[in-house]
Amino acid sequence: MTTSVPLKVALLGCGVVGSQVARLLITHEEDFRARIGRPLELVGIAVRDATKPRPGIDPALFTTDGLALVQRGDIDLVIELVGGMEPARSLILAAIEAGASVVTANKALLAEDGGSIYAAAAAAGVDVYYEAAVAGAIPIIRPLRESLVGDEVTAVKGIVNGTTNFILDKMHTDAASFSDVLAEAQALGFAEADPTADVEGFDAAAKAAILASLAFHTRVRLSDVDREGITGISPQDIAAAHEMGCVIKLLANCSLSADGTIAVGVHPTMVPLSHPLAAIPGAYNAVFIESRYAGRLMFMGPGAGGSPTASAVLGDLVTAARNRARGALGPGESVYSARGITPADEVSSRYYVSLVVRDEPGVLAQVAASFAAQGISLQAVRQDGAVVESRAHLGVMTHVATHAQVVATVADLEAMPHVEPGVTLIRVEAA
Amino acid sequence: MTTSVPLKVALLGCGVVGSQVARLLITHEEDFRARIGRPLELVGIAVRDATKPRPGIDPALFTTDGLALVQRGDIDLVIELVGGMEPARSLILAAIEAGASVVTANKALLAEDGGSIYAAAAAAGVDVYYEAAVAGAIPIIRPLRESLVGDEVTAVKGIVNGTTNFILDKMHTDAASFSDVLAEAQALGFAEADPTADVEGFDAAAKAAILASLAFHTRVRLSDVDREGITGISPQDIAAAHEMGCVIKLLANCSLSADGTIAVGVHPTMVPLSHPLAAIPGAYNAVFIESRYAGRLMFMGPGAGGSPTASAVLGDLVTAARNRARGALGPGESVYSARGITPADEVSSRYYVSLVVRDEPGVLAQVAASFAAQGISLQAVRQDGAVVESRAHLGVMTHVATHAQVVATVADLEAMPHVEPGVTLIRVEAA
Repeated sequence: MTTSVPLKVALLGCGVVGSQVARLLITHEEDFRARIGRPLELVGIAVRDATKPRPGIDPALFTTDGLALVQRGDIDLVIELVGGMEPARSLILAAIEAGASVVTANKALLAEDGGSIYAAAAAAGVDVYYEAAVAGAIPIIRPLRESLVGDEVTAVKGIVNGTTNFILDKMHTDAASFSDVLAEAQALGFAEADPTADVEGFDAAAKAAILASLAFHTRVRLSDVDREGITGISPQDIAAAHEMGCVIKLLANCSLSADGTIAVGVHPTMVPLSHPLAAIPGAYNAVFIESRYAGRLMFMGPGAGGSPTASAVLGDLVTAARNRARGALGPGESVYSARGITPADEVSSRYYVSLVVRDEPGVLAQVAASFAAQGISLQAVRQDGAVVESRAHLGVMTHVATHAQVVATVADLEAMPHVEPGVTLIRVEAA
Repeated sequence: MTTSVPLKVALLGCGVVGSQVARLLITHEEDFRARIGRPLELVGIAVRDATKPRPGIDPALFTTDGLALVQRGDIDLVIELVGGMEPARSLILAAIEAGASVVTANKALLAEDGGSIYAAAAAAGVDVYYEAAVAGAIPIIRPLRESLVGDEVTAVKGIVNGTTNFILDKMHTDAASFSDVLAEAQALGFAEADPTADVEGFDAAAKAAILASLAFHTRVRLSDVDREGITGISPQDIAAAHEMGCVIKLLANCSLSADGTIAVGVHPTMVPLSHPLAAIPGAYNAVFIESRYAGRLMFMGPGAGGSPTASAVLGDLVTAARNRARGALGPGESVYSARGITPADEVSSRYYVSLVVRDEPGVLAQVAASFAAQGISLQAVRQDGAVVESRAHLGVMTHVATHAQVVATVADLEAMPHVEPGVTLIRVEAA
């Protein structure tokens, strides 16, 4: 079964993950040969600056012309680790057109325009694998694509961004403000200089779109995801969560609505301590799946980092190479169910609503009446111990209500003379 | 891509899992057709008693002649849910010889004689999938076989038997004896009338053999697994674990030894509360993987039950059917590393040693000297508060030592006049 004709590999991008992938391909040649049945040969690496020293990698492999590399005509497998939309998109499409299978970690591209990449791959008869695009080394794409393919997934919920999980964790343990913890995370290298993609939830939203597409056999794009970041989370929110027996997590939440459409959102969410996702620490990721027959499954592991991401990329590379060696193909895109997206206003959740009121007789009754008028029933109401300058803090935990109901209630509350401006709300996950 | 020629499916066994699989194949025909690109047709079900009523399944499908069914010549896919060695083994080999791909949940057979089944499948050019054989619906076989195939797994540890996890859980929460909790589990249907396979660790050992084979690319058989059940666990052991900040779990432990051999054992083990496996409740299963690049991953979910097992079987069936529809093949057996098994005596662990001594001056010094003589250093020593009839209980937590060292120490201790017979030891997992 083992033949000596190597499968040729081109690597696009040689940053933290790419250089790790390149070194492992070189140092573990024999393992890859044994696991695939044919040797892999790394024939070129596209980079922006080919003169930068990269120890352990032959300088002759580097080129700044990625397009020429993927188009040279003899490449079997292309690993795309450039990230972002362009030139990654053009390079992947050119590689597919040239007949190569593609392994990518590019969640933004797949969430934005995965459809055209999968279509091009199907037309060319090549594979696209992307385990590293979601939740680092945690095998989650393959289980959804293959293991649970005989089941009906009803929800996928995940902590899929390590940076925000680290920041929220620190806000809980140190009772510190978002900006202080962000600065600390940046100093430690856990957050980027420009943290927007992480803290505003764009990164998590791209992963949610990919997970929802796979789980529900339908195409979900980044723009379909109802997204909210963690920049508005205050130490008061953290304290309120603590008091409610919860922690705040940035949760990607994809679920099948009663009408058969798909609700896909990323929101800071109070998660009860009894829920398995509440215990996921620091820079870890976890994905929780609810399915009709398998029940509740959870997968956890490191969510980012060079080595874990390289592990996921190389697992995909071996699978794509095995397919190549046998003339076989992995699963293509499965979008047969073609479900719509639940409008954000119609998505249901429990909510925690926080407001400051003037401490006068009848205020609580007015607040309660405002929820009742929207048909929202209440699970718990707490008034903080201290009344400061005749103002008191009220925390209201609702039963399940639609976003529209809760937003209407908030507008109603803010119009009341005894309620201060700045009513806030946070979703609450079921236990 | 969708053609209307059905792939023909034969089912062997129609118990709890089999009847669920049959019903789902019938009721979800359209989903399977869309996910595979071709329809599936259930053409026969082999059972012991074809006259037993099975609602929702056409009685004409039943036959008592499984061999004739798999040999009829037009079967594409065979699902084996008979279990045990024979006739399951002969039926699977006959199915493979007749050109069918096989999906099986038969851990005992795969652990005992998987080699000949994989070899037959490779020779015939068909697939063997067995996700349901280990940890119910938790996708663990596929991640090990495919996702982590570019990594180096260093350890796989798991709670892979729900019955014993339920019993140990109950012993912890109710401070009850093994026999009382077993009787309760039997009454609730969580334990079999003959519980030997579960409580003596045979079921977990078969799963450990399968996990170790996949993780380390070598063949590990049931007889290679160092096995100990939970029948000897006393309420005193449970109390001691509690005092040490641990819970006792029946742990399947497969790890790469320093000399490159593989240690594979199933033992009741004290697991520190800070370890993710400590929190796995009741009838759940969980598998914890340590790998060189991906780091620490954990997978959890329901470990048994008709629906979860059916979900795993149907996921495999869709994958095997897709391969079939494309003329492709999944990964075969990977045993290229051909590692040896670490002799049980040479496997290292921390240990908790429990003994009753006569409370006389100098006894503790003698006990400590006995450990020191074997080169074992101690992490903690506790003497129970109460001295009853001038006898005291000592609990000793060791640092890492080989099993041979600890066994020699126990022999030494039992020979001392001041030590009562019946020194016990339990392994302790690292935090």
